[in-house]
Amino acid sequence: MESYLARRKQLILEDRAQRVDAPGARALSEDEVQADEIVRKIRAAEAISVWAVNSESIFDYDPAKASPNVFPGMEFLTARETIVQTRLFKILNKMPKGALLHAHLDATVNARHLLKLALEQPAMHVAASRVLTLDNIKDVLPKFKPLPKENLSEVVSLADPSYVPGTWIPFRVARENFAQGLGGPGGFDDWVISALMINPIEAYKTHNTTQKIWGKFSSIFTVSTNLIRFSPIWTEYIREFFLTSIEDGVSYSETRINFWYKYMVGPDGEESIEHRGFLAIYDRVLKEVKAEMKRQGREDEFVGSKIIYCTLRFVTPEELDWYCEDCLALKQEFPHLIAGFDLVGHEDSLKPLIDYIDPLTRFVERQKELGLDIPFIFHAGETLGDGTAADMNLYDAILLGTKRIGHGFSLVKHPKLIEICKERDIAVEVCPISNEILRLTSSMPMHPLPVLMNQGVRVALCSDDPAIFGNMGLSFDYYQVLVASEVSGLITMGEIARDSIKHSCLDPREKERALALFEKRWAKFIQDIIRENRE
Amino acid sequence: MESYLARRKQLILEDRAQRVDAPGARALSEDEVQADEIVRKIRAAEAISVWAVNSESIFDYDPAKASPNVFPGMEFLTARETIVQTRLFKILNKMPKGALLHAHLDATVNARHLLKLALEQPAMHVAASRVLTLDNIKDVLPKFKPLPKENLSEVVSLADPSYVPGTWIPFRVARENFAQGLGGPGGFDDWVISALMINPIEAYKTHNTTQKIWGKFSSIFTVSTNLIRFSPIWTEYIREFFLTSIEDGVSYSETRINFWYKYMVGPDGEESIEHRGFLAIYDRVLKEVKAEMKRQGREDEFVGSKIIYCTLRFVTPEELDWYCEDCLALKQEFPHLIAGFDLVGHEDSLKPLIDYIDPLTRFVERQKELGLDIPFIFHAGETLGDGTAADMNLYDAILLGTKRIGHGFSLVKHPKLIEICKERDIAVEVCPISNEILRLTSSMPMHPLPVLMNQGVRVALCSDDPAIFGNMGLSFDYYQVLVASEVSGLITMGEIARDSIKHSCLDPREKERALALFEKRWAKFIQDIIRENRE
Repeated sequence: MESYLARRKQLILEDRAQRVDAPGARALSEDEVQADEIVRKIRAAEAISVWAVNSESIFDYDPAKASPNVFPGMEFLTARETIVQTRLFKILNKMPKGALLHAHLDATVNARHLLKLALEQPAMHVAASRVLTLDNIKDVLPKFKPLPKENLSEVVSLADPSYVPGTWIPFRVARENFAQGLGGPGGFDDWVISALMINPIEAYKTHNTTQKIWGKFSSIFTVSTNLIRFSPIWTEYIREFFLTSIEDGVSYSETRINFWYKYMVGPDGEESIEHRGFLAIYDRVLKEVKAEMKRQGREDEFVGSKIIYCTLRFVTPEELDWYCEDCLALKQEFPHLIAGFDLVGHEDSLKPLIDYIDPLTRFVERQKELGLDIPFIFHAGETLGDGTAADMNLYDAILLGTKRIGHGFSLVKHPKLIEICKERDIAVEVCPISNEILRLTSSMPMHPLPVLMNQGVRVALCSDDPAIFGNMGLSFDYYQVLVASEVSGLITMGEIARDSIKHSCLDPREKERALALFEKRWAKFIQDIIRENRE
Repeated sequence: MESYLARRKQLILEDRAQRVDAPGARALSEDEVQADEIVRKIRAAEAISVWAVNSESIFDYDPAKASPNVFPGMEFLTARETIVQTRLFKILNKMPKGALLHAHLDATVNARHLLKLALEQPAMHVAASRVLTLDNIKDVLPKFKPLPKENLSEVVSLADPSYVPGTWIPFRVARENFAQGLGGPGGFDDWVISALMINPIEAYKTHNTTQKIWGKFSSIFTVSTNLIRFSPIWTEYIREFFLTSIEDGVSYSETRINFWYKYMVGPDGEESIEHRGFLAIYDRVLKEVKAEMKRQGREDEFVGSKIIYCTLRFVTPEELDWYCEDCLALKQEFPHLIAGFDLVGHEDSLKPLIDYIDPLTRFVERQKELGLDIPFIFHAGETLGDGTAADMNLYDAILLGTKRIGHGFSLVKHPKLIEICKERDIAVEVCPISNEILRLTSSMPMHPLPVLMNQGVRVALCSDDPAIFGNMGLSFDYYQVLVASEVSGLITMGEIARDSIKHSCLDPREKERALALFEKRWAKFIQDIIRENRE
């Protein structure tokens, strides 16, 4: 038996040897080992006290009496309120997260906060395509538009029978006068929020397939863009994103900004701000937040932020040339801000990368001509398809030399591509909660993340579109990953956070500093866990 | 661009080089290539005509108007009636399937047929733990028991208010007199069937987690065993299993029989038949079916069947010694029937293999002493767990030298174990529909099968418990796998079928014959496809 157990131990070691947390991969302090044990104990206790089905055995289960809290890593939108109350979440909330490498800027700020920002702007107007009633309110989306001056018509409510569909009403006015029968101002807020977020009924019932939920998901951007792409709001939106990320322990971010829209509306209500204006605002807010953090003596908590230039996967190859040139010009003007280039949108239904080989190759050549370096950081394989165009995007992303892979959900199916990712140290930006809500996986235990980790592919956990999913910061994504595995522990989470910095587009000097700051915070975090959980 | 496409093609080839259908793995006939193309075209056409959401784009989707047929490989219990009407299914139905390597005998015959068999037995009685009413009928399970003589009480209905709970009523009598308010005899049948199968509401709504659905799943066996473990029924049950398997194109099977119950009830209504009696019946029916097939001039369609001896994962290690000795004795008496040894039951909640190392090691030594060879063919990794005891069963199954792996759902997480499976040619018995209904995966596109296939692990598709899932034969499992991939085609399905024979426990001579017979049928199948689908 002893020899059997020795062979078994050896086999397990070999099986896990490529993991980021493999024994010997990094020298661990005694404190780290102790904190990891504490966290494992809390996880095990809460797996029963918080997440177990409320019956003694599988035979006793009564659906009518069941608690909805049924297993760790279950559907996030159902579990969220339970998660925030757990000890484990409270610990992870304080963990330094390193870098956030995959988030779409337009979906990074809590929807209720965006609503608040919009209400502060007299220029913001709202319209509906029908007179709102109890019967149709769930089907009608709000439309937003900043106008040069307040459009004060006689009709002040979207539910007024005499409201002419499409007429712009000042946002605050429409809210204050929202019909009591539709819930008054609170009902108005709920109507707007429901157009800006995915709710559990949609994710798990009415739109419970990747294709259907993408319909809802995409519709959100068509609504939110007209709130966000207005420079006074954009400015405060970015600031809020930076500040809340810092609060969650994220010290650096690379945000994907969709430059498909060529203009933003300025304070004058005119669609007049060009892309360089977008970046100027980003740059200014970045400096202001840095200054503010310094003022608070917290400059070590914020290393900075860069931008991954994106346009949408439905542009023609010819149109893409324009965006590539635009990106080059922005890189020349803001070399410290432009970190990479990507194409975004629903991979299963939009154009595959193979359609863009020509313009993308020209883009690389133009960079050489101009002495610039804008790595591709492609979304690829965000799909359940096996051999479909979306799945095949992985081949093109890698052939085009992508620095990281956005999602790479279907990468687990590709042994040769996994090998290449390891050789070239291509990290995968894994978005656990996004994948679950967008129905690529039904829960975290079904997620293929452990397949990648055990094969030694480096991953960074990312929130993707936290405003839509309600997974603000990175704590929720770390939580869902940590509770769905008995192999991973706190030490694993730390290694993943380190990898997020290592695989960022920070230049070597910045990266070194970011890693050093991380280690300092990590050591303190570990000590806090030990101190706060003394038995 | 040309050079890019050449590099791309090369990369795809390398990525898929380990697949069973990799170019050059087997010389393909022109007919096979043509039939494969025909099947791909039908699949592509039906992906739209049968399975597409009934809206033009993801933005138009209206949940209220949606068809439930939403994507190929969707939930089997919802899709079944649609599947049987497709051209693709009708083709696969005629495909020679090779061997069925993973099926639990107690769940291999259509539940309505089992009901019919039971009604033919005057000895069969039924009871309920409560007087049945409209309110409780969904919660009360039927109990069955063959009795030495008919128990003719005055009360003939389980819904009669004067029925004393637990009293045995002859099965036919109880059915004929079933209350009209509960649907009469048809309602009785539905009541019994609902205790013998998983319905879509259970799988996808009330019991939509692995743990909950296993509660229902396990309860089925407690009901059905008392119908099946009665030799007159058992005899006809086995016959029906063989005959229906043959009709589905399965030419050989290795059925798992649960020997945990030490006795079967004989025709005299006494629990008197020992395990050797179980095997004697199996052997006799096998010979009768072979004779019948020969009489029909169809002996080439049925190579035979063997048994994998199983007991349950809740026996103590000491009790397991008894079963091992029992298995050895049976192997000595029926060397041609006993093919292997396994432990079955819910891996997530029952004892892990590590608890049984001692008795299992003794079992191997005893085989050596007696000059017997009974390979382990362990269930392992039928779990969503990552590093849980059920997931760790894979290490022990492999260390104990398992010949194949039953399910191996979590094997994709274990790179070293995958390597060993390839080195030792350990095939995985993949049960697609079982995995989906038991909630390890929510649909076929989420299933990790392509991960194993692309890494070169050999797989056999298996039905597991077709009577419970309604996936009789192997056609449904092949269908779900084929529609969920653009990489796999008819040729792939043929290779998987060949692998099922190659990885069976047939002796070399039998295996050679089975493969030769398969090739003959495969060639005819291919020609039929071409002839029947001429444009």
